Amino acid sequence: MADSRAGPVGRVAIFGGTHGNELSGVCLVKHWLANGGELHRDGVEVTPFITNPRAVQKRTRYVDCDLNRAFSADCLSRVETEDTSYEVVRAQEINRLFGPKGTNEAYDLIFDLHNTTSNMGGTLVMENSEDDFVIQMCHYIKKALAPGSCPVLLIDHPILKYATTRSVAKHPLGVEVGPQPNGVVRADILDKMRTIIKHALDFVKLFNEGREFPPCEIEVYRISEKIYYPRNEDGEITAIIHQHVQVYRDYLACNMYDCLVEMFRCL
Amino acid sequence: MADSRAGPVGRVAIFGGTHGNELSGVCLVKHWLANGGELHRDGVEVTPFITNPRAVQKRTRYVDCDLNRAFSADCLSRVETEDTSYEVVRAQEINRLFGPKGTNEAYDLIFDLHNTTSNMGGTLVMENSEDDFVIQMCHYIKKALAPGSCPVLLIDHPILKYATTRSVAKHPLGVEVGPQPNGVVRADILDKMRTIIKHALDFVKLFNEGREFPPCEIEVYRISEKIYYPRNEDGEITAIIHQHVQVYRDYLACNMYDCLVEMFRCL
Ligand SMILES: [Zn+2]
Ligand SMILES: [Zn+2]
Repeated sequence: MADSRAGPVGRVAIFGGTHGNELSGVCLVKHWLANGGELHRDGVEVTPFITNPRAVQKRTRYVDCDLNRAFSADCLSRVETEDTSYEVVRAQEINRLFGPKGTNEAYDLIFDLHNTTSNMGGTLVMENSEDDFVIQMCHYIKKALAPGSCPVLLIDHPILKYATTRSVAKHPLGVEVGPQPNGVVRADILDKMRTIIKHALDFVKLFNEGREFPPCEIEVYRISEKIYYPRNEDGEITAIIHQHVQVYRDYLACNMYDCLVEMFRCL
Repeated sequence: MADSRAGPVGRVAIFGGTHGNELSGVCLVKHWLANGGELHRDGVEVTPFITNPRAVQKRTRYVDCDLNRAFSADCLSRVETEDTSYEVVRAQEINRLFGPKGTNEAYDLIFDLHNTTSNMGGTLVMENSEDDFVIQMCHYIKKALAPGSCPVLLIDHPILKYATTRSVAKHPLGVEVGPQPNGVVRADILDKMRTIIKHALDFVKLFNEGREFPPCEIEVYRISEKIYYPRNEDGEITAIIHQHVQVYRDYLACNMYDCLVEMFRCL
């Protein structure tokens, strides 16, 4: 626990709707905006926030470009013109409200709520491996959910890392829960997300009260590479994921080339 | 077996992409267009066909309006102007190619392939309870898939029935397979759909060969009513389906009002 930025975590935000068709976070944030009692923890200001309201309105991932890739220095400093995409304008707004990213004025902690059609369960997504506060928080949440599983994904790949919405905070944490179709709400998935946030806020409270957290280790998954689907001469995808891999083997090692059913002129 | 239209079933079409984001049918039809060997049955002409190519291209349910509601007499006879929606124009085209609906020139049999995010398994959708050919076909498919389940849904509700794409054929059958997120292909779901079509074509072959099918009964589900979600004063949905109902209880009787978790300012 030697995080130079460690200290009382006073300002926390919970983002929903960064992708407008991932509805658990949209539902929860709207619910908390109307009735946020369960977010209350003494000494912490917790702000639920819809990050991409136009995409939420349209029930699409985004309007012009992916908001969750729009927090690079370049995007955040771009001068606004008529042609600037909605999400870049919105990213700058969010950066003013919750950042500025990389400064002392930034929010201490931001959770960003996502869904996936993959069977990832409730996965915590860390941005870097040096953030002791987030490591301790993930460790706490994992313990609270045991024997249920709560994988941690570390997205610090030098090339594949991208500039997330939550990255404006000193301590960012993504919460990715699935499987849930886009545009659909499943009560069990929503409940899993809500429980993760409950434990996370409990941790913040204990941390602020000065509770000692002994050094810990957590197992993390990392992105090793992206593998593209095979395509035919027309550029159409010609394979799908084999059902035994898709349905039962999330988070298990596999040789991706063995996982494709190559028989379809598909999409 | 006293269907006045009974007789050799010579022309069969298999529609995919009536809803452009339901991808099992899109994949299968594209695959069969490139390589239709498995559809071959002596004496039957089987035509795979993408019904809404623009929606498939955009990966959306439809472009202007739902193609699967556009086969009413009104839509099919509407004079085309600049403002006519894409799907109405397309419906007329499909009616010329595979109909005209309600005439002797119409295709004998059309399968229309759909997916749903609901856990409906592989469900056969019948348009009316008097079509002995379709009843025998459903009976045959159900037996072929036993002990696996293959529910039959009869959509002949006087008010809630709608004019489907497949309704241009003398004998229409919908094939609705789930759960699968929109815009996603799951190998197990695709396989279930493909197997249903295999058995259906086997039945057509036997029927054409003059095989006797003794009178039979099948259990069918019917639409009894539509129930709307509760909404708040802003028109936003304020409830979601309870997880025990949503995840385990498709096709079981329930009191819908007991099934809603009414706590969310939701969508
Ligand atoms: Zn997302
Ligand atoms: Zn459909």
